[in-house]
Amino acid sequence: MEINGVEIEDTFAEAFPIKIGRVLITAVNEKWARVAAQEATGFGTSVIMCPAEGGIERVASPDETPDGRPGVYIQICTFGYKSLEEQLLERLGQCVLTAPTTAMFNGLPDAEKQFDTGFKLKFFADGTESETEVGGRKAYKIPMMEGDFITEHSMGGVKGVAGGNFFIFGDCQMSALNAAEAAVEAIEKVEGSITPFPGGIVASGSKPGANKYTFLKATANEKFCPSIRDQIEDTQIPEGVGAVYEIVINGVSEEAISSAMSAGIKASVKVPGIKKISAGNYGGNLGPYKFNLHDLV
Amino acid sequence: MEINGVEIEDTFAEAFPIKIGRVLITAVNEKWARVAAQEATGFGTSVIMCPAEGGIERVASPDETPDGRPGVYIQICTFGYKSLEEQLLERLGQCVLTAPTTAMFNGLPDAEKQFDTGFKLKFFADGTESETEVGGRKAYKIPMMEGDFITEHSMGGVKGVAGGNFFIFGDCQMSALNAAEAAVEAIEKVEGSITPFPGGIVASGSKPGANKYTFLKATANEKFCPSIRDQIEDTQIPEGVGAVYEIVINGVSEEAISSAMSAGIKASVKVPGIKKISAGNYGGNLGPYKFNLHDLV
Amino acid sequence: MEINGVEIEDTFAEAFPIKIGRVLITAVNEKWARVAAQEATGFGTSVIMCPAEGGIERVASPDETPDGRPGVYIQICTFGYKSLEEQLLERLGQCVLTAPTTAMFNGLPDAEKQFDTGFKLKFFADGTESETEVGGRKAYKIPMMEGDFITEHSMGGVKGVAGGNFFIFGDCQMSALNAAEAAVEAIEKVEGSITPFPGGIVASGSKPGANKYTFLKATANEKFCPSIRDQIEDTQIPEGVGAVYEIVINGVSEEAISSAMSAGIKASVKVPGIKKISAGNYGGNLGPYKFNLHDLV
Amino acid sequence: MEINGVEIEDTFAEAFPIKIGRVLITAVNEKWARVAAQEATGFGTSVIMCPAEGGIERVASPDETPDGRPGVYIQICTFGYKSLEEQLLERLGQCVLTAPTTAMFNGLPDAEKQFDTGFKLKFFADGTESETEVGGRKAYKIPMMEGDFITEHSMGGVKGVAGGNFFIFGDCQMSALNAAEAAVEAIEKVEGSITPFPGGIVASGSKPGANKYTFLKATANEKFCPSIRDQIEDTQIPEGVGAVYEIVINGVSEEAISSAMSAGIKASVKVPGIKKISAGNYGGNLGPYKFNLHDLV
Repeated sequence: MEINGVEIEDTFAEAFPIKIGRVLITAVNEKWARVAAQEATGFGTSVIMCPAEGGIERVASPDETPDGRPGVYIQICTFGYKSLEEQLLERLGQCVLTAPTTAMFNGLPDAEKQFDTGFKLKFFADGTESETEVGGRKAYKIPMMEGDFITEHSMGGVKGVAGGNFFIFGDCQMSALNAAEAAVEAIEKVEGSITPFPGGIVASGSKPGANKYTFLKATANEKFCPSIRDQIEDTQIPEGVGAVYEIVINGVSEEAISSAMSAGIKASVKVPGIKKISAGNYGGNLGPYKFNLHDLV
Repeated sequence: MEINGVEIEDTFAEAFPIKIGRVLITAVNEKWARVAAQEATGFGTSVIMCPAEGGIERVASPDETPDGRPGVYIQICTFGYKSLEEQLLERLGQCVLTAPTTAMFNGLPDAEKQFDTGFKLKFFADGTESETEVGGRKAYKIPMMEGDFITEHSMGGVKGVAGGNFFIFGDCQMSALNAAEAAVEAIEKVEGSITPFPGGIVASGSKPGANKYTFLKATANEKFCPSIRDQIEDTQIPEGVGAVYEIVINGVSEEAISSAMSAGIKASVKVPGIKKISAGNYGGNLGPYKFNLHDLV
Repeated sequence: MEINGVEIEDTFAEAFPIKIGRVLITAVNEKWARVAAQEATGFGTSVIMCPAEGGIERVASPDETPDGRPGVYIQICTFGYKSLEEQLLERLGQCVLTAPTTAMFNGLPDAEKQFDTGFKLKFFADGTESETEVGGRKAYKIPMMEGDFITEHSMGGVKGVAGGNFFIFGDCQMSALNAAEAAVEAIEKVEGSITPFPGGIVASGSKPGANKYTFLKATANEKFCPSIRDQIEDTQIPEGVGAVYEIVINGVSEEAISSAMSAGIKASVKVPGIKKISAGNYGGNLGPYKFNLHDLV
Repeated sequence: MEINGVEIEDTFAEAFPIKIGRVLITAVNEKWARVAAQEATGFGTSVIMCPAEGGIERVASPDETPDGRPGVYIQICTFGYKSLEEQLLERLGQCVLTAPTTAMFNGLPDAEKQFDTGFKLKFFADGTESETEVGGRKAYKIPMMEGDFITEHSMGGVKGVAGGNFFIFGDCQMSALNAAEAAVEAIEKVEGSITPFPGGIVASGSKPGANKYTFLKATANEKFCPSIRDQIEDTQIPEGVGAVYEIVINGVSEEAISSAMSAGIKASVKVPGIKKISAGNYGGNLGPYKFNLHDLV
């Protein structure tokens, strides 16, 4: 199967369950909503050694935000609701409450699971806080040096999906990189998903465990490493491929992952020099979710 | 004392010791060095609830980097060397090794304290790694999906200073915000210092402890909160001041802090609408370092 | 009448007819579509002394572009179709054909007026060009150093509207500036309109003609100049207003102007420190189009 | 000769004389200095069909600007001083005076040729203007809607050099593009030169005149067009080259061109996938200046 002359391999991405908190950060302009969002979701690429995975989902237009200002949705992801609650409190308290002109609202107001993160953060006001309502949402006004910070009472969480992915094979590194950038740009317009790695891109796609250094939980996936192609018997790097980037996707539902993978793949194959699209799976041992590339595009 | 018609209060910033690791991240262009740097220093505003403080120090021109590519210096800060070593391993391993086209080099090659972070990260290659030399630095080549990742063997750390600061009083919130942005822009050109808060700016300047909610380590500094000015007997908000932003600065030395405060103050008073520059201190109880504003400008 | 506590003056913007060409520029990513668009619409703020007015209208998603790549719509505006045809040829030939990875398509394929700009530009290929079809559009393939440049055969033009506008009164300059930025950000999401001034904002709102220097076609509108408020008898600057910015809007139809003014005003009043929204008119002498602010919001 | 494993061809760039005006634009922050600069130098890639060539030279730090604010230097280039004076008046009057928070200063205060552009623009104030001095420069204060616009009295011009250039051959289009981007990023840090094409890059390197369509002044240089390599007998495209980008450089002196070419070439060969660096010359018929690549690097 081909799109735009690029082979789409007949394979699937394997993904696993995760808990996701979704928050809407608004600010005086999109720039400052983004800055707060980046700080709050930083050090958040992989739960292997980060306290959470996180990323910017999409921009929210003033029409759809409770306070009528521009905003961005972020997601914070951990394996359990307890750690998610902690991470929300720490990341929102340290990186959004502290950021200029921001406010924060529940990104999943209808979810069953609700955390009272905003209620807890109001204590920062040391007794000067007050309850308020913004766009129908129960919120608090926290007097600060810059003026009043607004936070909604609750932030919602859901059972989501982590590790959706696809691989972009380029004839050279810059082709693969630019295609990966195009994919991330496209996915940022899709509802419900994030690409938690730096700039949305994984340069170091890994396998679970190790062949040699067995004390490690994950190591480089040597079958997909072009520079050692000649040394690896079962290399998956076709001739003429100079680099591979992986896009890893988390989302609030299987549909969110599917939509993101589809948008990302379609965008990446438009970049000149792309040879193949594949995906990462581990014989079905990593997780229960499967996303067949041929079903997506 | 006045600069550009703006009152510089006769006061001082109070700061405290911290341990700082400094790393040079290079990439195919400044954009990708920055993206990796932001991810690696994210969730890093204050050690109160973040695992480390961190930020981008300055851009490094290709002339001064071991591999001749554009780069940025970052700093990671924690109270002890043990936690610093852990944070360096986790943040560089998860956020720089994984980022497209990056390499990483020791930002303090002459420091007494050296961590073998690069040596430890090479195990990710699962046996396919090799030793190399880049610009006279002992380094490792780690084959990955995108090609080879280069990391220097060691990353250096020093005893530095945290909590350098100044306050910008604006006639309205946007004046104060734009002045704070100008200050951060100027400080990013100074050697040796970072501004760890989101976009370099603190919207929520705090006091140690609390008046009412004594279970908290830090709460809003109500004396500097304009929206409750009429309720606070000893308010420090002069009439006509609508907002205050704080710039917090960490640096590898007292000189780095002084230079950054000086550059930041000079830049901020150029923005129309700035009424006063002050600084935060707590009667000398917070830390041993003092930076008199009048000595700096 | 007030929105968000900001007075909307009971007045109208006065606008006049202009001819508009609309072009869709696509590229390997949004960045390069934007770079080409900025170059092509630069030196294009006002037909008073620029050869044309121009600006970026909005981003086009890959779904809606003939080649499935990201793009931006631009508009080029002059008083007559003859000068419009010349400006399209010069600006597209010098600033889009020359830009990396771009292609260009007709932004008004259904308009009555069509220019064969693409047909003329194909001669650059000096005999090596060929006809092709992209997304159902008749186009040419022009071999170049970077590869093949694609241009559609025709570019459409319409009778549009120029000089739609509103004024943002801020308590200080930075409030007004940030509100103007928010307005431009919002208008860029609206179909059919551009804000041709630098970054979309006019710092120097003018009146037709002059009181003193009558050799000039337009001079500063002294009634709206805060720094000389005390010298101007019939000043329109209320007490407490420190700065005024004007947003000037051109569009393909009256509806496009209305939508843009509405979105821009709603966004700007959300910024703290905004005191009033007004608009520019000259007793109905400048042009036949009138946009009442109270009808818009 | 090779740098970083990339062949530097033993050839030269041929360049020709031009007149250059240089202006320093300052603003409340670098963003707004850049926005005004882009507007003022837009529609300015080549004098073949643009009214002038123009571009941003480099960022100016607050330390070196007369008003202590951040700024950027721009250059405007035409063949004669008369057209240069007109272009300065039109471009500065329409694109800098109109831009938020900007001021403008003479970028060549010691040049023999001086234009009284600032003096002429002060008439916009319609009698409310006044003379002032900023950082030792004679200037005017022009009351406007946003506040006071400051312009220095004179703007200087010199005999400079246009058409300095080099070619970047990449194994694929994205390698060549990213190398060209790296070159432009490096050249922007060099004193005295600009890269007038969109984003600094030429996708459509041309030859003077035409083989077939002799009514054109310049057409595609088919010898350097990869997609028709097989049809062109004396093609200059080596096997394995997928795309070529040209960087065109104007500067205030031969030294400025040499420094820029050197910085740009060194930066571009660091990008993976670059095969060769060459340059454009036309048997010495185009102009008197020659820049040998081997002398530069």
